[in-house]
Amino acid sequence: MNLSGEMLIGQNNVKGINQAIYAINPANNQTLDPAYLGGTQEHVNQACTLAWQAFDIYRNKSVEERAIFLETIAENIENIGDLLIQRAMDESGLTRARLEGERGRTCGQLRLFAKTIRAGEWLDIRVDEALPNRQPVPRFDLRQQHIALGPVAVFGASNFPLAFSVAGGDTASALAAGCPVVVKAHSAHPGTSELVGKAIQQAVKQCNLPEGVFSLLYGAGNIIGSTLVEHPYIKAVGFTGSRNGGTALMKIAQNRSEPIPVYAEMSSINPVVLLPSMLENNPDTLGQAFVHSLTQGAGQFCTNPGLVIAIKSPALDIFKKSATEAVQQSMSQTMLTPGIFQAFLKSVNTIEQQNKVSLLAKGLVSPDQNQCQTHLFSVDAIDFLNNELLQSEMFGSASIIIECKNMDEAKLVIEQLEGQLTATLHMDQNDMEDAQRLLAVLERKVGRILINSWPTGVEVCDAMVHGGPYPSTSDARTTSVGTAAIFRFLRPVCYQNFPDDLLPDAIKQSNPLKLSRLINGERE
Amino acid sequence: MNLSGEMLIGQNNVKGINQAIYAINPANNQTLDPAYLGGTQEHVNQACTLAWQAFDIYRNKSVEERAIFLETIAENIENIGDLLIQRAMDESGLTRARLEGERGRTCGQLRLFAKTIRAGEWLDIRVDEALPNRQPVPRFDLRQQHIALGPVAVFGASNFPLAFSVAGGDTASALAAGCPVVVKAHSAHPGTSELVGKAIQQAVKQCNLPEGVFSLLYGAGNIIGSTLVEHPYIKAVGFTGSRNGGTALMKIAQNRSEPIPVYAEMSSINPVVLLPSMLENNPDTLGQAFVHSLTQGAGQFCTNPGLVIAIKSPALDIFKKSATEAVQQSMSQTMLTPGIFQAFLKSVNTIEQQNKVSLLAKGLVSPDQNQCQTHLFSVDAIDFLNNELLQSEMFGSASIIIECKNMDEAKLVIEQLEGQLTATLHMDQNDMEDAQRLLAVLERKVGRILINSWPTGVEVCDAMVHGGPYPSTSDARTTSVGTAAIFRFLRPVCYQNFPDDLLPDAIKQSNPLKLSRLINGERE
Repeated sequence: MNLSGEMLIGQNNVKGINQAIYAINPANNQTLDPAYLGGTQEHVNQACTLAWQAFDIYRNKSVEERAIFLETIAENIENIGDLLIQRAMDESGLTRARLEGERGRTCGQLRLFAKTIRAGEWLDIRVDEALPNRQPVPRFDLRQQHIALGPVAVFGASNFPLAFSVAGGDTASALAAGCPVVVKAHSAHPGTSELVGKAIQQAVKQCNLPEGVFSLLYGAGNIIGSTLVEHPYIKAVGFTGSRNGGTALMKIAQNRSEPIPVYAEMSSINPVVLLPSMLENNPDTLGQAFVHSLTQGAGQFCTNPGLVIAIKSPALDIFKKSATEAVQQSMSQTMLTPGIFQAFLKSVNTIEQQNKVSLLAKGLVSPDQNQCQTHLFSVDAIDFLNNELLQSEMFGSASIIIECKNMDEAKLVIEQLEGQLTATLHMDQNDMEDAQRLLAVLERKVGRILINSWPTGVEVCDAMVHGGPYPSTSDARTTSVGTAAIFRFLRPVCYQNFPDDLLPDAIKQSNPLKLSRLINGERE
Repeated sequence: MNLSGEMLIGQNNVKGINQAIYAINPANNQTLDPAYLGGTQEHVNQACTLAWQAFDIYRNKSVEERAIFLETIAENIENIGDLLIQRAMDESGLTRARLEGERGRTCGQLRLFAKTIRAGEWLDIRVDEALPNRQPVPRFDLRQQHIALGPVAVFGASNFPLAFSVAGGDTASALAAGCPVVVKAHSAHPGTSELVGKAIQQAVKQCNLPEGVFSLLYGAGNIIGSTLVEHPYIKAVGFTGSRNGGTALMKIAQNRSEPIPVYAEMSSINPVVLLPSMLENNPDTLGQAFVHSLTQGAGQFCTNPGLVIAIKSPALDIFKKSATEAVQQSMSQTMLTPGIFQAFLKSVNTIEQQNKVSLLAKGLVSPDQNQCQTHLFSVDAIDFLNNELLQSEMFGSASIIIECKNMDEAKLVIEQLEGQLTATLHMDQNDMEDAQRLLAVLERKVGRILINSWPTGVEVCDAMVHGGPYPSTSDARTTSVGTAAIFRFLRPVCYQNFPDDLLPDAIKQSNPLKLSRLINGERE
């Protein structure tokens, strides 16, 4: 398959006419062909109109048809073969092993959503049967299911060119819910986007679905994205990226004549708390494990451990020494884009220049371009509490150790944190009381709490929450990873006093789809 | 119990110092004592600070303790006795029968939420057990439950002084979820609010809960309300009222440094479609039943049938004649407030003056003050399609019959409607095909679809959806009536690799609370 540089508007492949995007190999700053000419507002309108035309048809397809569609996409992505991995490596600087793993996750989550919609829990079926003899008034038969919200705009993420991009978690959950998807490709990996986009486009055709179920647009700058979010046929937005980008989309969505939900996963520094007894007994191994998590994927994860909170002690000094040595030996890694590299430089320089912040260690640097050099800082809790800037995300392998006088001060630090995706406690049996005190605070601050593990590495499963209070995301009531992500693109509808043959299959009295239902208050 | 005119800030009863509110008996425009002096921004701050201090304690109370609290509120409300009904009658112009029914619904929904939280479905427990031997990487144990969002601001509604006011559906669902509540009383029924507020305040004390679980504030104008929604300790807002009011709160909530969800139930004209065969066979009874629904509670329901859509035919003429006669015989009813009465006059006059709109009938008028005189209009579909104003809500007993050439035109009319709470089809077996065509459109437009019943009368149960696409509500993903309303005030949290004794009871491995759980993808 050759790359064409074309947008995919339904089954049409269309060249843009605006400013071209070129992928850049971040390891050597070389420009990669082809040119991806930017789309116009009219292209956005075409894609959204097709999506709207497809909506009623697609959402009324049987669950089985949608499940097969998701599985076909996965198969088509696998069938691209090594071309996809090679192009993604060139565009992202990520390693083969990482991208092969990410492809596995991408196809795995498409198949998991197929399984999820077949299981039917997502419909949240509720039935209250008629009570014709109830006094003083009878009760009508009332049945609830969930239906798709409408066409969804998805913005590809830079840091997961497969798993959170064109066919990533947002797209998979929206398609699973019955929503057509219009993707704005991330400008850092247009070729990867085209390859995956064509896999979806082909699956639409193979499954005889209306073409508007999927479109893929390109555009430099913000016009395509903002036009997409403003479009009246778009009913929800999925985004993973910067806080500036996410909050800009939230504003656009709120200023529409019909405001729509924006699911923006924005930034998080993921505090890791080392409780005293655990630290006392394992300072050296904790230091090494921490740096291992910190340096994974050049730290370009939403769940990167950007903050370590611990109480001053000889054990903490050993932890610092161990982490310092590990950082000093850490190899540099190519960052995703020159822009992300520049932002990383700027953010670590800003932190380094803050009063009372110590630079503990820097990692090695190779002569390649856009190299992320690991940075480890430390600061006294009191100075952290007095400087909001120290809560800024440094997107890359950089972290700050916050040294506290005692557990009360550690609790103060945690209480002052902004909303986060994750928080982690390292603890043993003797730390139980401290852990319990901190958990009450952490529950209010984060979407996922980990014990004795590391926040990088997000499992795709039913129980996962990859979300959290603002500003880690725009909407703490949801998750963007795992099967519960489907609820972002659904809303409930109640059917009152329907003749059975007019009811959707999911809520017919005979329960032909064999779904779990809440009937008259009891789980069936 | 004498009315004191005081605000309830936790267990403190406090007189305001700003402009006084007086209730007005709308039947005679007489002012009712006492004066309710308005609160200050400092009062808002006190209530929110107490709510915040109560939050961690309250949300961590056992489900059983919260359930008993809800039941105690219900009991305390019942114990106020006739004083409550009498004061509510004086303040609202509603009848004794209606208010006694509404008290029953209010206490019933408090008890239903007690039952709901005991049943535990609201926690949406999901467990993915550890897979220590999985290749290439093991899976950690992951468990999800839902927790309370934080203190909630609730705005009392004018049209349900009990069931959607101080202890109404928003308060009941927020308290059930584990959220403290700060209520801004509706200025139309401050005495009813004080009585119910004291019933909650007393229940807080009886149940040994932290006092900040509930506060009640008064204020003329918008300052108290906007300060409340802006307050950093408030994490969600429940509101039922006008579109202007709801959209203003949405803007305030979005402009906070931490945006929060607003659940505003705003306006709806609730189209009723009369399908041809049903109309042909029952024009007379349908006309009468329609006017019966239209005139209930002086039409002051969110689900009042403000639009009838039907195809021109001799049967439609009979329906119109029947409805006209019923309207002409309909007694006027006292509206909730002089302001609502004036707004009703203005809105029916505006509709009457629209080009091509015919006034079919007006009801009777009694000499009392603020009397809602039923109005029935008709208009050709083509003229309806060309005049957006005809979709404005007339809050009161007023409705428009839209006369269509054929089913295609009826579908066009429906397609052009804004989002609605409800839509209704009157149909028989011969109308099945038309019904199926319309349902695909209606599902996209509304939260509840009814067959052969009338939208007024909203059942409080598991399957109810009292919600719908914007602008009927601010958030179509939820309902404000029924047990699913609790989800508005919850968010998911994931617990990774926790030792069992540190897990919340709801997700402990032994399932001590006997909850329904999704374990490794299977419903348990």
